[in-house]
Amino acid sequence: MDALAHLDGEIATAKRLGRYRTYLNLERRADLASRAIWHSGEGDREIVVWCSNDYLAMSGHPAVVGAVTEAVRTVGLGTGGPRSISGTSVYHHALEAELASFHGKPRALLFSTGFGANEAALSVLGKKLPGLVVFSDELNHASIIQGIKGGGARKRIFRHNDVGHLRRLLAEHGPEVPKLVVFESLYSMEGDFSPTAEIVEAAEEAGALTYLDEVHTVGVYGATGSGYAEELGLRDRITVIMAGFGKGLGGSGGYITGPEAVVDAVRSFATSFVFSTSLAAPVVAGALASVRQVRRDPAQREAVRARSAQLKAALHERRIPLVSADSHVVPVLVGDPHLCKRVSERLLAEHGYYVQPVNAPTVPEGTERLRVTPTSRHTPDDVTAFVDALDQVWSDLALPRA
Amino acid sequence: MDALAHLDGEIATAKRLGRYRTYLNLERRADLASRAIWHSGEGDREIVVWCSNDYLAMSGHPAVVGAVTEAVRTVGLGTGGPRSISGTSVYHHALEAELASFHGKPRALLFSTGFGANEAALSVLGKKLPGLVVFSDELNHASIIQGIKGGGARKRIFRHNDVGHLRRLLAEHGPEVPKLVVFESLYSMEGDFSPTAEIVEAAEEAGALTYLDEVHTVGVYGATGSGYAEELGLRDRITVIMAGFGKGLGGSGGYITGPEAVVDAVRSFATSFVFSTSLAAPVVAGALASVRQVRRDPAQREAVRARSAQLKAALHERRIPLVSADSHVVPVLVGDPHLCKRVSERLLAEHGYYVQPVNAPTVPEGTERLRVTPTSRHTPDDVTAFVDALDQVWSDLALPRA
Repeated sequence: MDALAHLDGEIATAKRLGRYRTYLNLERRADLASRAIWHSGEGDREIVVWCSNDYLAMSGHPAVVGAVTEAVRTVGLGTGGPRSISGTSVYHHALEAELASFHGKPRALLFSTGFGANEAALSVLGKKLPGLVVFSDELNHASIIQGIKGGGARKRIFRHNDVGHLRRLLAEHGPEVPKLVVFESLYSMEGDFSPTAEIVEAAEEAGALTYLDEVHTVGVYGATGSGYAEELGLRDRITVIMAGFGKGLGGSGGYITGPEAVVDAVRSFATSFVFSTSLAAPVVAGALASVRQVRRDPAQREAVRARSAQLKAALHERRIPLVSADSHVVPVLVGDPHLCKRVSERLLAEHGYYVQPVNAPTVPEGTERLRVTPTSRHTPDDVTAFVDALDQVWSDLALPRA
Repeated sequence: MDALAHLDGEIATAKRLGRYRTYLNLERRADLASRAIWHSGEGDREIVVWCSNDYLAMSGHPAVVGAVTEAVRTVGLGTGGPRSISGTSVYHHALEAELASFHGKPRALLFSTGFGANEAALSVLGKKLPGLVVFSDELNHASIIQGIKGGGARKRIFRHNDVGHLRRLLAEHGPEVPKLVVFESLYSMEGDFSPTAEIVEAAEEAGALTYLDEVHTVGVYGATGSGYAEELGLRDRITVIMAGFGKGLGGSGGYITGPEAVVDAVRSFATSFVFSTSLAAPVVAGALASVRQVRRDPAQREAVRARSAQLKAALHERRIPLVSADSHVVPVLVGDPHLCKRVSERLLAEHGYYVQPVNAPTVPEGTERLRVTPTSRHTPDDVTAFVDALDQVWSDLALPRA
């Protein structure tokens, strides 16, 4: 077998299925996170970004920029080692304390990515709790799936957000069996919330631990911005809360918060954590500044929620179909990979609006969508102009109305 | 089962075996990477760090600090998405081009960690090359092991650096079987080089692809600092070269370089790559500045290699045993976990020298060691004083001489 030719064939198949990903080369504006200069190869063009997870535009917040700048000047960029071999900085120490307090948990642990946080934490729980059965929502993120698989525990998948199904699966395992229910507060590709309170109740009744991924809600929900569990008053009833800095907090990296025993076990036994260079200190310093800012000032989350409500109302009025209207994430349903790509291309070429098409296998075939994400730095006029543009493309391509 | 109590028991076992890791809370000095302020909880103390992988002290190089500062002010901290959804910045684009050129390969791809680069690349090769057999050195890094496991391909393990054994294993599979030989140029816990030329030759004769981890050699070896394969004139004969920014380049993150088909397949099919927020733009900008600096200026690598040679000669003179004297990494053999910890504690308490003990399961039981890493910013006097201190502790604890 010619291995390289075989890989070329795999790529060609992805292209034929409309699944091949291309990247836009962007220079985002730190001062105005909704805008970027697109370096297209045929000249530069300022565009409006409508698919960023930088929901609160914290990536360019002066407090964040200032903290990164100060930290890199003080301690440099790389830490030079994993956490246990010279790779723990004063910033790591301070941010973990801040995150534990932010979520009202005993302890927190940083990872270089949110993906890595889920992978590490869930694989350690699977490996270190003999007989564990993990109950996992069918739409849980790829990182959760990989973590559960890595841990080797038995997995039961419940239908998306179906608490009745979860309860039936839990009931199939006796009280002596250790159980863990893993779910997300907001499924970012669907834009829908989980029935978090009902899932927690079902887990409590079955004596199961709970693991909640709040990656897309942190910063955006809750009185102090710590996420959806805070908004519902459920934080104390969830064992482990996982989140990250790459979305509402405007940085990069991930974390878990929870009981001392869980965090110390993950810290001690997760191979990918123990043997990785720690997150760069200026990134940690930026995350710390972001969390502190988000905790004390609700203005950014109020803004993104207002913009998102305006967007959903305007799309509803034009009868443009949504996958869900629950949250600040607004997935517009197209339902075909090639049409989805065409809508995206026309929005960019004709209007300077960038929304990446989301095709299979990320979402099920036939549910291809444009995942639109307003941020706190989009204005009401931005929203109106975007809806007008989308409405026009929708008509031009004769796409079905709701 | 009380799950949290069970995890507490696992932690207690690790403590009893001398395997529990503690972290020093450090404020490294960007201007002098060999020094840090240790925030011990009992006051602050300036110490000399002797276990950092920031071999060339690039973390605090003015070019790196300047690039990070400029990038965060221009585009902010977080990219706001994975590479395919608004997460590709002009810096990502430029760094991937620079890395391909640096290693003389067609294409490169960035990851948030070196661990993640190995995990992603090796699991995609395993999944996408039907019938692949992977030949892996028994001391390959945990990230390589996890990547091979994730890919599900058949694995044959050859004895550490044993080319004869590798050849025998290769010969057990016919020419129709696709093969991949995975190894490192420098095994960082051993401090020894692989017989890179002989392994490449064996692989070529068997028609196998090769995958070389150069994480600990990039920046330090080769005329332009691209690693050990460059030093040996072997770059063109290796299929994939993997390395990272967390060591000699003073940053964080990892990358692969190689043929278009391999890089595009990993980019397209690696779950942990596709569904992760991309590396923060200022970190990418810092890495770009570091690579450009390292390519044009050999002064830092000449310095670290001179300091390391001085250290090894002085330890040899005092008959303090080493695991290997091959490279710039100097592992001092202690051979007992509790003694190893005591040497480390006394060096820190009595002399202000920080070397983390490396115990099982990171290294085999009975080979516990102090992994000493001089950097380009340690002076000849630093080395002399350190050897004097270690010699004294060695005598005080009556440790065996070579």
